[in-house]
Amino acid sequence: MNGAPYRKELDTPCLVVDLDRLEQNIAEMAEYARSRGLALRPHFKTHKTIEIAQLQRQYGAIGFTCAKLGEVEALVEAGVLDDILVAYQVVGEQKIARLLRLLERARITVAVDSVAVAEPLSRAVAALGKRLDVVIEVDTGLRRAGVQPGEPVLRLAHELVQMPGLRLRGLMTHEGHAGRAPTTEEMEQLARAAGEALVSSAALLRRHGVSVDIVSVGSTPAAFATTRVEGLTEMRPGTYVFYDAAAFRFGRIGPERVALRVLTTVISRPSPDRAVIDAGSKTLTSDPPPPGRTGYGYVVDYPMATIARLSEEHGVVELPPGVDGPVVGERLEIIPNHVCPVVNLQDELFAIRNGEVVATWRVAARGRVR
Amino acid sequence: MNGAPYRKELDTPCLVVDLDRLEQNIAEMAEYARSRGLALRPHFKTHKTIEIAQLQRQYGAIGFTCAKLGEVEALVEAGVLDDILVAYQVVGEQKIARLLRLLERARITVAVDSVAVAEPLSRAVAALGKRLDVVIEVDTGLRRAGVQPGEPVLRLAHELVQMPGLRLRGLMTHEGHAGRAPTTEEMEQLARAAGEALVSSAALLRRHGVSVDIVSVGSTPAAFATTRVEGLTEMRPGTYVFYDAAAFRFGRIGPERVALRVLTTVISRPSPDRAVIDAGSKTLTSDPPPPGRTGYGYVVDYPMATIARLSEEHGVVELPPGVDGPVVGERLEIIPNHVCPVVNLQDELFAIRNGEVVATWRVAARGRVR
Repeated sequence: MNGAPYRKELDTPCLVVDLDRLEQNIAEMAEYARSRGLALRPHFKTHKTIEIAQLQRQYGAIGFTCAKLGEVEALVEAGVLDDILVAYQVVGEQKIARLLRLLERARITVAVDSVAVAEPLSRAVAALGKRLDVVIEVDTGLRRAGVQPGEPVLRLAHELVQMPGLRLRGLMTHEGHAGRAPTTEEMEQLARAAGEALVSSAALLRRHGVSVDIVSVGSTPAAFATTRVEGLTEMRPGTYVFYDAAAFRFGRIGPERVALRVLTTVISRPSPDRAVIDAGSKTLTSDPPPPGRTGYGYVVDYPMATIARLSEEHGVVELPPGVDGPVVGERLEIIPNHVCPVVNLQDELFAIRNGEVVATWRVAARGRVR
Repeated sequence: MNGAPYRKELDTPCLVVDLDRLEQNIAEMAEYARSRGLALRPHFKTHKTIEIAQLQRQYGAIGFTCAKLGEVEALVEAGVLDDILVAYQVVGEQKIARLLRLLERARITVAVDSVAVAEPLSRAVAALGKRLDVVIEVDTGLRRAGVQPGEPVLRLAHELVQMPGLRLRGLMTHEGHAGRAPTTEEMEQLARAAGEALVSSAALLRRHGVSVDIVSVGSTPAAFATTRVEGLTEMRPGTYVFYDAAAFRFGRIGPERVALRVLTTVISRPSPDRAVIDAGSKTLTSDPPPPGRTGYGYVVDYPMATIARLSEEHGVVELPPGVDGPVVGERLEIIPNHVCPVVNLQDELFAIRNGEVVATWRVAARGRVR
């Protein structure tokens, strides 16, 4: 693809999305979910782009996961109204007011992990004579938000079913800690343990007469491991649409599967062992490499090179001795360490097929930070 | 300020700018530049906001520094036309075409660090019978772009003065490496060495008959050290308008001087030693703390707390034993590690005076990534 027209035509830095790879990634995950009998509810935060959401929908996604109400608003404005899970605590009067407005148009479920979060939601919807679907966020090892599995989940469930206006639909967890494990074996162990903790919490609730329709896990790196556990109903992977350098570490994904690249230009060759590109932390982000890798991204055109340091608008690429590096003006493609915050820095994605730009997609929820 | 109205009224996460502190910071640097007889050409990349640029101008800034042509375009669209330095290599036909358009309206100087960068610029402006002012970017220790001081600068200068359409105005460096030194003493040593390398390169050029009007340094952390060197003409600090947690490390700046804070909400209190806020790496960025500090920002309301981990939309705040932490819904203000990429993630800044929101400023050059 080194001579592909888009590499010369586009100004840099910019994000290019290979449509064939994108569709392959979306199709594969959809097929996997189907094969496991799981609902697929992809996380919108990765791409924030309506055109990609529509493609996921065509391949059978039952709805979407969002972190921010701003992401939900972007979906609803585009007419995507059905079955959106806000996998995030909705806290504060401004956000509750926005949620109520969204409920008038769309089917929305929100996560709760405490009475302190649930009570204001209950009061607000009950005052309007409305109903809000909720799931309990369970901490299966990530140590972020969420209640502990087992008895604490049951205690919160008992509180929730008493609260006017709320309807408890089930449980969710984000097993992101598994994806950070240093080996595939450890990742699979952590993922399985997370899935089992969630399923056994659901069983505990059912034994106590609480109905549980949704048992939802979500994380791309652990997706194929967590979902081997029986008793789950839903998966919520995000980065799988594009993949990134973090996805290399469990061996299943290589650069040829990655649908999104950062197109950059070499702006300086100050020494034989150093090239400077026009993508720094304001493009690639400072997100560190996954265990086992070094540098701030994978240089597709020079895999032996390392993006050793970033300033805001400069990437310093170190070249090993004997490598004839790129010349000033040469275009390089970079696979970022973590694709989600990279997309979040751009207003558009350039969609590529057969080396040509065939569409420019707006990152619709970029800047919807609240 | 804990009970200030804006803390309840604004939805989170958002960026609030205290106007009194902002003006104090701008006034202090302007006064310092005047006292040293230096032109002040602040870097626009920190705030990307026209209202702040205008304030800097009122306090005597002679013009602005930009990294990206998109930043220049934002300034020019707002009528800021005079004396903009692009402290960056302008490479590629798309960018050269944009630069030529900008030259029709504004006074612009660009950095060059090689014949490979300068020649296409020379060809393009000469073909139109125009003239482009350039400065040589010198590497005084940062090991990013730039030519080495002394003879390499002279060699490039001799090439540049032969190139049609180009007018060499002088030399610039970014002594960012000094600001990363672990101690104040080392910072001052590196800064002084950088300033001296630049001044002696300028002297070498003059001895060989090359006129040098601009001898320009730039970096907030090292600003007061580099500029003690005699023979400089200009300084280009950036972050001083706001300051950030990185600025604490040389003792001159404390939290009370920082004009920008990230307003956040506590969304979960899963355990006594942990609070989760609604600002993650998509708000605070993954930029690491400076030497001697830990975590992803300084929690103004709980200085003993550590923002230990970030996901994209979650910040995990660890609280020491015995500290009664914040409750769900409580607002917290965070001073980010590095303010520039944090501003770059937002569409607006909320300007605060006496605890009230008095203006909403658009981050005009946000998204001008090229």
